[in-house]
Amino acid sequence: MKDRIQNKDFAARVMSAEDAARLIHHNDLVVTSGFTGAGYPKAVPEALARRMTAAHGAGEVFSIRLLTGASTGPQLDGALAQANGVAFRAPYNGDSAMRARINDGSTLYLDTHLGQVAQKARQGQYGQPNVAIIEAIAVTAEGHLILSSSVGNSPTWVQSADKIIVEINTWQNPELAGIHDIWSDVHMPPETRIIPLRHPADRIGATTLPINRDCLAAVVITDEPDRNAPFAQPDETARQIAGHVLDFLQYEVKKGRLPASLLPLQSGVGNIANAVLEGLNNSQFENLTGFSEVIQDGMLSMLESGRMSVAAASSFSLSPEAAQRINDNAAFFREKIILRQQEVSNSPELIRRLGIIAMNGMIEADIYGAVNSTCIMGSKIQNGIGGSGDFARNAFLSIFVSPSTAKNGKISAFVPMVPHTDHIMQDVQVIVSEQGIADLRGLAPVERARAVINHCAHPDYRPLLQDYFDQARQHAFGQHIPHHLPTALAWHQRYMETGSMAV
Amino acid sequence: MKDRIQNKDFAARVMSAEDAARLIHHNDLVVTSGFTGAGYPKAVPEALARRMTAAHGAGEVFSIRLLTGASTGPQLDGALAQANGVAFRAPYNGDSAMRARINDGSTLYLDTHLGQVAQKARQGQYGQPNVAIIEAIAVTAEGHLILSSSVGNSPTWVQSADKIIVEINTWQNPELAGIHDIWSDVHMPPETRIIPLRHPADRIGATTLPINRDCLAAVVITDEPDRNAPFAQPDETARQIAGHVLDFLQYEVKKGRLPASLLPLQSGVGNIANAVLEGLNNSQFENLTGFSEVIQDGMLSMLESGRMSVAAASSFSLSPEAAQRINDNAAFFREKIILRQQEVSNSPELIRRLGIIAMNGMIEADIYGAVNSTCIMGSKIQNGIGGSGDFARNAFLSIFVSPSTAKNGKISAFVPMVPHTDHIMQDVQVIVSEQGIADLRGLAPVERARAVINHCAHPDYRPLLQDYFDQARQHAFGQHIPHHLPTALAWHQRYMETGSMAV
Repeated sequence: MKDRIQNKDFAARVMSAEDAARLIHHNDLVVTSGFTGAGYPKAVPEALARRMTAAHGAGEVFSIRLLTGASTGPQLDGALAQANGVAFRAPYNGDSAMRARINDGSTLYLDTHLGQVAQKARQGQYGQPNVAIIEAIAVTAEGHLILSSSVGNSPTWVQSADKIIVEINTWQNPELAGIHDIWSDVHMPPETRIIPLRHPADRIGATTLPINRDCLAAVVITDEPDRNAPFAQPDETARQIAGHVLDFLQYEVKKGRLPASLLPLQSGVGNIANAVLEGLNNSQFENLTGFSEVIQDGMLSMLESGRMSVAAASSFSLSPEAAQRINDNAAFFREKIILRQQEVSNSPELIRRLGIIAMNGMIEADIYGAVNSTCIMGSKIQNGIGGSGDFARNAFLSIFVSPSTAKNGKISAFVPMVPHTDHIMQDVQVIVSEQGIADLRGLAPVERARAVINHCAHPDYRPLLQDYFDQARQHAFGQHIPHHLPTALAWHQRYMETGSMAV
Repeated sequence: MKDRIQNKDFAARVMSAEDAARLIHHNDLVVTSGFTGAGYPKAVPEALARRMTAAHGAGEVFSIRLLTGASTGPQLDGALAQANGVAFRAPYNGDSAMRARINDGSTLYLDTHLGQVAQKARQGQYGQPNVAIIEAIAVTAEGHLILSSSVGNSPTWVQSADKIIVEINTWQNPELAGIHDIWSDVHMPPETRIIPLRHPADRIGATTLPINRDCLAAVVITDEPDRNAPFAQPDETARQIAGHVLDFLQYEVKKGRLPASLLPLQSGVGNIANAVLEGLNNSQFENLTGFSEVIQDGMLSMLESGRMSVAAASSFSLSPEAAQRINDNAAFFREKIILRQQEVSNSPELIRRLGIIAMNGMIEADIYGAVNSTCIMGSKIQNGIGGSGDFARNAFLSIFVSPSTAKNGKISAFVPMVPHTDHIMQDVQVIVSEQGIADLRGLAPVERARAVINHCAHPDYRPLLQDYFDQARQHAFGQHIPHHLPTALAWHQRYMETGSMAV
């Protein structure tokens, strides 16, 4: 353990997770490391959940307000949700137990652009953090943290929280040291600085994170893996979508609208994203780069093959097998990967400057190409907007991908009107389904509708969408974006009543 | 005229508007100067409209695709719309005749974030511009344009159009020379540069605009005022809204969340905006700054009083009286005002870095604070999203203002669900009506609903909104953002059927 904790002050604060959890009180604002299931604290939240359950059993109230980088794992969101111990959650959740709490109304959820959380926190929009819990790989002799598999909002949390609890996770490979790039020239306006980054590979900060030693309240040793979801093998639909995306990118290069090495790629997670990245890995493109919020299995393969020269993000989102590859080859990957705080990885300044190609999934789009990424039937949260808004609005190219149907065809991903909008028409340039591609650039709304219906919608739903569009043009209050309000949301209502959007 | 055209090549190209208009052909993509009714070409578009009318009378087709900076005036959008000569219009329109063409379906309209037009044009999203028509005050001996009362997209258009027509408008005061700041270090990614601006007063470019002399096709002399709308005198409702905004800003300073001189202000146009600026002008704030897309009467008064030290924008939007003040005191104002191209004035990089306080109007908001800025009843375009998306998403504080009702109480500005979303919940931090202020920062959706209903909605509509909210909570598919889809758009449908949203 001396290797992991080289500083005496830290060594003197080592205690059990149970003791550390006792530092957290009812109604506290707790802020933690963690982003897309990587680098989140594990032992203290689990001990906290046990305390909460005991307190609830004794008839006491005990809940916290919880902020993170983004999604965490079962030991944090899962355990606390099962203990019904979170009154308020931001900025992103992907855990099913927490999702259920949000959707039954017992946890309030503030779904936030991931690139804006740090500034909003500094503005005091969430209140004063009582306790920060930060996972690290190790502590240097100077008492700086070597963060683990994500950076997230940790630099902001350690600056603002009254007390800091550090979890040293010995499962994380110490050779990841050096992979992080933590920019410290962060100021509030009017003193905000230019972010001096011109290329995804630029390093603009430090590899370690200093903390205010007066706030250090506890150090807890853990040895647990991140929540690594099994690799989602691309199915036929995912491969078809990936094929369309590849064709499109190749066409754009041929037309001179994209450089031969493309532009830095941002990609969401899941089997479609992995299929696209797999396609790129088997393509003729060279010297690709990644500038994203997460690094998933597909990007790892591209770094290994040399197809991609550098990938910058705020976090990993890997399968157990890929996580093992990182751990086994940490020295190789830390030369190719840069992990940044999310206000840098998701900065609108950088996304616009670098000219990102953004590829994100969605729940559904309407015929005019407005996208719902978050709320099923307009009300039930799936995960959250995450960084999709940071990237889609400021990207050089903004692509949204989805299978044309879900639930064995009972749900169409293309609908008359989305019951919840995360991405407005203006931020959705290209939509791809397994049916084909709708290149919406330069098109007015009614032209967009024809492209979405004819190129992306499933053939079973095309006549229904065309009927809606025709009816809307006949009855609309104006012909700019024709809608027929009495039937605009009828597909969703039908699904809730009958289990199918089809008539 | 020698004073105005100091270059021989330009002098040799002087011709009538009729002759210049003959350079424009059916199906041309025509790109012009002009932004919020300032600095747009006047004589050539009117001559073109006459040609179109004659052609249509002779049974010939004649229409163009038209791009500008933003809104223009009756001599451009008005005349061409009356001639039914515009097949496609982007990125913004405020003219009533053009609006009617868009809403009856005869003109396609691509409503675009104003800060993104130049990059999209360079990407080829609108096609190759055939003709640029640029209004200028004068031409220097080197053959550089001194632009007039707006910069807009003119730097992009002169670089890309096959032919350039320059209108020299002698109505514009030549002493405005020096007011412009045209940044020329514009490159496509991966070569995009940092925009080296840290304060609204920073000058980063040139005061004049060089053009490719080979493309110069015509110079036309005009002497016509910009379309200056009469000053909208703030009414009691506007003053109440302004009062709430002032109270809020003072409170934020007192709480230490804003500096004593606030942060650079962005403000829309109209009587509410002017009331807010008038209130600021009568306040104790000092050394205020403006960083916006337009400078309206209110900012001019603040510059004159010394309450504001500098105002940067892309354009003026003034009453005839205020335009006269500029013309009479050009030497004073050109030291206090900077006009930039809209990809700088509306840059997400700068809006985030400078920490703008954004204040924008809206058509309506739903109970969760999603905002519709553009489409009446979801379908009929009013003007367009303009720069509101550039500013609202990236601002330090994003405030939306509206009277709580319109049409003598027949329309509520606060509705169960907006039938069109321009600004998602996440981008709407504060909403103000004459009823009060809903500070939505840090609130989850159901908390936002309570704030909007109780603080902003008109008392006549509050029980109706509360009924909807209660019903939504009872029937929703999830409690994250409770909606009841069968009645979510019923208010709008009722208005279309009965002329009132009230039951």
